[in-house]
Amino acid sequence: MTSKYAKYIPTAIIVVLAAALAAVLLFMYNQPAPQRGVAPNVDVVAYEPDSSIWGQNYPNQYSTFEQTTANNVRTTYGGSDNYSKLEADPNLPILFAGMAFSKGYTEDRGHGNALTDILETARVNDKTPGTCYSCKSSNNPGLWAEMTMETYDATSFANLGQHVTETIGCANCHDSETMALVVTNPALEEALKAQGKDWRTFTRQEMRTVVCANCHVEYYFKGDGKYLTFPWEQGTQIQNIVAYYNEVGFKDWEYPDTGIAMLKAQHPEYELFSAGSTHYSAGVSCADCHMPYTRDGAAKFSDHNVRSPLLQPEKACGTCHTEVTYVVERVKTIQGQTQTAMLAAEAALIDSLTAIKAATADPNANATLLNEARAMHRDAQMYWDFIAAENSMGFHNPEEALRILGEATDLARQAQLKAIQALTPAAPSASQ
Amino acid sequence: MTSKYAKYIPTAIIVVLAAALAAVLLFMYNQPAPQRGVAPNVDVVAYEPDSSIWGQNYPNQYSTFEQTTANNVRTTYGGSDNYSKLEADPNLPILFAGMAFSKGYTEDRGHGNALTDILETARVNDKTPGTCYSCKSSNNPGLWAEMTMETYDATSFANLGQHVTETIGCANCHDSETMALVVTNPALEEALKAQGKDWRTFTRQEMRTVVCANCHVEYYFKGDGKYLTFPWEQGTQIQNIVAYYNEVGFKDWEYPDTGIAMLKAQHPEYELFSAGSTHYSAGVSCADCHMPYTRDGAAKFSDHNVRSPLLQPEKACGTCHTEVTYVVERVKTIQGQTQTAMLAAEAALIDSLTAIKAATADPNANATLLNEARAMHRDAQMYWDFIAAENSMGFHNPEEALRILGEATDLARQAQLKAIQALTPAAPSASQ
Repeated sequence: MTSKYAKYIPTAIIVVLAAALAAVLLFMYNQPAPQRGVAPNVDVVAYEPDSSIWGQNYPNQYSTFEQTTANNVRTTYGGSDNYSKLEADPNLPILFAGMAFSKGYTEDRGHGNALTDILETARVNDKTPGTCYSCKSSNNPGLWAEMTMETYDATSFANLGQHVTETIGCANCHDSETMALVVTNPALEEALKAQGKDWRTFTRQEMRTVVCANCHVEYYFKGDGKYLTFPWEQGTQIQNIVAYYNEVGFKDWEYPDTGIAMLKAQHPEYELFSAGSTHYSAGVSCADCHMPYTRDGAAKFSDHNVRSPLLQPEKACGTCHTEVTYVVERVKTIQGQTQTAMLAAEAALIDSLTAIKAATADPNANATLLNEARAMHRDAQMYWDFIAAENSMGFHNPEEALRILGEATDLARQAQLKAIQALTPAAPSASQ
Repeated sequence: MTSKYAKYIPTAIIVVLAAALAAVLLFMYNQPAPQRGVAPNVDVVAYEPDSSIWGQNYPNQYSTFEQTTANNVRTTYGGSDNYSKLEADPNLPILFAGMAFSKGYTEDRGHGNALTDILETARVNDKTPGTCYSCKSSNNPGLWAEMTMETYDATSFANLGQHVTETIGCANCHDSETMALVVTNPALEEALKAQGKDWRTFTRQEMRTVVCANCHVEYYFKGDGKYLTFPWEQGTQIQNIVAYYNEVGFKDWEYPDTGIAMLKAQHPEYELFSAGSTHYSAGVSCADCHMPYTRDGAAKFSDHNVRSPLLQPEKACGTCHTEVTYVVERVKTIQGQTQTAMLAAEAALIDSLTAIKAATADPNANATLLNEARAMHRDAQMYWDFIAAENSMGFHNPEEALRILGEATDLARQAQLKAIQALTPAAPSASQ
């Protein structure tokens, strides 16, 4: 047997090896192109404001980003339908009397509508500074690099508007060469620096939260130059922010007939979320829930149709939570609790304003007590607004939201009390 | 080859089969006795109060239960070390002035110490009814069956004490024949019935929470017969309980020099936990965290050393949560937030008492406003106490705890205001 077939062995080995090699090569040839390292279709210049150019290289990200314009959906407490918040909550026109938000306060829509919506808001007028464009356009990174933020902020809204053609887009968060996530807003860079933080040392997962802080934060316009500033010098929790504003003596407006130097909160999503919330502490980023990973065939990408996780809970929550129906129910419970606490704070604030108004109208009112009442009301309303203006109805940090609203109510009631005592010096002291 | 060994084949087969049979039998013989269906060492009679007799059949459960006597550990906000709560929080002697809890208020210890501790508390005196033994002894199920709860409650503490020899034990939660979990406290049976619920239809997992409600609830002694009653007729949330007490006009004591008909909360763990907490909603039972499953070799049993999950988080939390260090950190955060809100409520309550005291002392005070202030303070302090007396520093239901404390503070501040207005009729109205 051995001798008979021995001469065919080398040939057989050669045939088998050749076939195997051919099969392996054929397999490799038929693999999909790798995602990384694919040559770009077009070169994107630094600070390119036109997102459609970036979109040629990143069609999945761009086509989902484009959906932020079309999307117009309302959730229980928010969404991207620009309904009037003033009509939804009749307390708001009272609480914001005398300032722009009592004239126009619509729910914000998606990134694709940011520029349209600021041009249409009732809050813009002749005196509006250019600073208001800071969070509305992908032209900004280029403009800031070109003219500095100082000049940008000192330009009028009308004049700056000639350079602002694009809504929020790719350039607001990405480096055009590496596509890395970057801090583009100089105000954020400065605020982090003041805390001794350098975002260039952050992990990618950290940046998936920090880039949102380019805009989703509390800020104010500092001085005559309307210099965009985040009030984070003492920290990013509400008590630190209020302490900062009180120290620098900033006010957004004076409440009519009360002499109260008021503060208006913007949209402190980053501050509330990062104040020890359970998701933040567990290392979850904003993008994990608001831009969940999705697939187009073999390509995995993060959904750039940034929106409420409640509009796609299977993807947004289901990546970590096995029982999606259960967690959506929890969100509803938490938001309901926050709204209840929010309305209690509003009732206390309105009572406080009424009492302070009465004391202000009376020339015999005790000035010391009345000023204490004013200072307390200022803080109370800012505490409340920190949650009311924030876009999650408490969900970003449920316990912190309830703590803040509880303190707002307590402070407002104490302000009311002081104002009443200002009119009736015989009454016993408010505290022991 | 075939012919040569053929005659040995039958023998070989027989030898192999015999050896296999012997091996299998030997293996079966050496298996540990199955847990279910094992014959009991002793027969336990119905309502047997002596847990050591049950313990002969269930040594693992009994030996861990016995540890509840020895255990004497303090956690940040509780544990089983009977320190004085009056010393830990100097607000408590003020808030409970005029009633027994201002004389003695120690942190409760483990089940094994329940009887010892009630005999030693400064709150027991000549007038103490037998009802106070209701949650302290495994003699109770037998006594209730023998003499009815009505007679039990109408007996004096001193007289009933002759029949009460055992601390809390097996008979408080188990049927001696089937070892099934059972509701033994007639007050719980009645309270569930009033809500149209029959615990005999509950799942075992539900019973692993409901048996704890034999004791860990809010209750009061109804009428002259001191009939043990759970105030659940309108529901088990704080607002339902307060509405019930207000309807029946019950008071625990009158606060000195104020004329306030006060309420004292007991230990409403069941009510707080079951009010839509995240763990309750997810189907987690009290026993899952406080009596986690553990092992003795092949035997799996629930740890009857009922205690704070913080004393063994790996078992208590680690069964469901992969990152135990993280969840323990969360517990600390949540409890810290609750304590902050609790202290704010206490400050408001003390201010309110001060104002009501001043108004009560003044014969010219407006009686209507003063009575409104008293009613508000009564509710406010019960809201606060619902969380302060509850044994989890808010953790059993963090958002609900913060909601309740927020409302307590709001109510207390409004009570303070009304009292001040009662003295100064010229002051503007508290609400619009």
